[in-house]
Amino acid sequence: MFDFAVANLLFLESPAGVGFSYSDTPSDYYNFGDAKTAEDSYTFLLNWFERFPQYKHRDFYIAGESYAGHYVPQLSQLIYERNKGVKNPIINFKGFMVGNAVTDDYNDYVGTFEYWWTHGLISDSTYKTLQATCEGSSSEHPPIECIRALNTAQMEQGNIDPYSIYTKTCNYSAASASQKRRGRYPWMRGAYDPCTEQYAIQYFNLPEVQKAFHANITKLSYPWKTCSDIVGEYWTDSPLSMLPIYKELIAAGLRVWVFSGDTDSVVPLTATRYSIDALNLTTVANWYAWYDNSKVAGWSQIYKGLTFVTVTGAGHEVPLHRPRQAFILFRSFLENKAMQRN
Amino acid sequence: MFDFAVANLLFLESPAGVGFSYSDTPSDYYNFGDAKTAEDSYTFLLNWFERFPQYKHRDFYIAGESYAGHYVPQLSQLIYERNKGVKNPIINFKGFMVGNAVTDDYNDYVGTFEYWWTHGLISDSTYKTLQATCEGSSSEHPPIECIRALNTAQMEQGNIDPYSIYTKTCNYSAASASQKRRGRYPWMRGAYDPCTEQYAIQYFNLPEVQKAFHANITKLSYPWKTCSDIVGEYWTDSPLSMLPIYKELIAAGLRVWVFSGDTDSVVPLTATRYSIDALNLTTVANWYAWYDNSKVAGWSQIYKGLTFVTVTGAGHEVPLHRPRQAFILFRSFLENKAMQRN
Repeated sequence: MFDFAVANLLFLESPAGVGFSYSDTPSDYYNFGDAKTAEDSYTFLLNWFERFPQYKHRDFYIAGESYAGHYVPQLSQLIYERNKGVKNPIINFKGFMVGNAVTDDYNDYVGTFEYWWTHGLISDSTYKTLQATCEGSSSEHPPIECIRALNTAQMEQGNIDPYSIYTKTCNYSAASASQKRRGRYPWMRGAYDPCTEQYAIQYFNLPEVQKAFHANITKLSYPWKTCSDIVGEYWTDSPLSMLPIYKELIAAGLRVWVFSGDTDSVVPLTATRYSIDALNLTTVANWYAWYDNSKVAGWSQIYKGLTFVTVTGAGHEVPLHRPRQAFILFRSFLENKAMQRN
Repeated sequence: MFDFAVANLLFLESPAGVGFSYSDTPSDYYNFGDAKTAEDSYTFLLNWFERFPQYKHRDFYIAGESYAGHYVPQLSQLIYERNKGVKNPIINFKGFMVGNAVTDDYNDYVGTFEYWWTHGLISDSTYKTLQATCEGSSSEHPPIECIRALNTAQMEQGNIDPYSIYTKTCNYSAASASQKRRGRYPWMRGAYDPCTEQYAIQYFNLPEVQKAFHANITKLSYPWKTCSDIVGEYWTDSPLSMLPIYKELIAAGLRVWVFSGDTDSVVPLTATRYSIDALNLTTVANWYAWYDNSKVAGWSQIYKGLTFVTVTGAGHEVPLHRPRQAFILFRSFLENKAMQRN
């Protein structure tokens, strides 16, 4: 049904201190920020292309999700600017795609609080307090009243998975039984397993897996984790908005796609809708349902310079929740083809 | 696990012309409205209690969903007023409960459009047009610009089930195969079957089912349907708001519970949140997650005189999508007990 050979994929765990990426000077972990991450990733790419020269000059795209809503446009901007005036650039950069992406602190706050209230996750009173105390402030350094309101909101939300509000949370002790059942009944594989993150932590810490990946050959003093507390805690620069970079790269004619899984409450689609609206782009095709197998798979709007796509029923990580729709989305992005109408 | 003997249930297909309820004068079908429906239902109840006197004077509650957001409060008001000054009333009326209920045209419109936009179902431009052309108008007789915007909104939403936005639509030809599979694998019964309505239409038109129900003994000239076009098309009175009745019955000390399945886009939880907010009631317990089996089953807020409960992942008909949570809700209503915190 699908021709899967659409692209070569290169995964980068970034910045150093995250995943298997590391620094020879671990004190670096306390000094990371957006700018250093972009510079390091750029250096990595140059070295990688030297090591694998057969990939030089090919069409090159960057994609990422969540806080990569900062990493991806910033690295894109760096590559774009260093390529300026270069005739046949080694990194033949064509565009980027981000999903459930942190984009613009002001609009992200407005849209996130509205998502929480309209999805019934928080009280009327907390909604009002969040609007009064957080909106307009930096998400990296919010005022104390905003932090208090965010804590109240989290308490009101209860024990749900904020990254996928309608699916179950992981009950790890029951997970092995569920794994066994799916082993026996392979047609049940379609559903999202909320313990996926737990399995990944186990998996990437297995010595045989690390060996097969050629990873962790310097024997790090800490295990592979999904998030580095140190890197997160000591984070330095984090600009309030990526929208100026969007404007610059759209004006440069680069391909820019943005997508949202619509059941994520962490960086929800309403946040992204407000951020994109703030770009004041011309609409080429207004909001329409896109289809896969005659079923609505989400919605899309095409602007001059930017395409926005939602994937319905998908949480924070679209490829994890809706792998088939994510593949169609990825292929459409590479082919620069609009998502299919009915 | 459950003691199911919590109440006797009496189901009424109302008004006449709907389901198996009928009029000897079919021209009545062209003249129905809210007031006549309440009067007829009241007459039905009086006659029913005469026929089954052993149920007289017992605690009596009314419940309904969707447009029964009109029927239930209106019938409640009628019973309440006719009971005034009666010492030991035959209809010993104690309160009512409504779900995903049409309540107040203004707030329902505001909340419904906001739900559509925040759930990614419509474009920014259609959202603005709906707000400009529909809000403040009657939902029974909207202006032409509002009707146009509603049509655009429906087109943008595409072929989804508006009553349950994250579940599949019914593909009736494939339905029998799905039925068979569930017959073989009973543990898959938990999931909502989108063809339920189609099965019900077949089922209630089977002669043997009608015989067993003692239904349709006068041999109606039309089949059992889920909605009567004639009754709907020629509907007469439909007040803009039920909130005055809420105020009257809350002041009278009657029990009033309101619930919302939170994945319904037809009478969504945001519409109900705005309507309840307009009542300006005192909060007794602010928004909190309620639990079933240590899992978040929804949220609840207790006001002085009214309890609001949501059921997460449930569409327009909560008992159809979440039967277990609906039963807990129904039992809690009868016992007047708050939904359980973690």
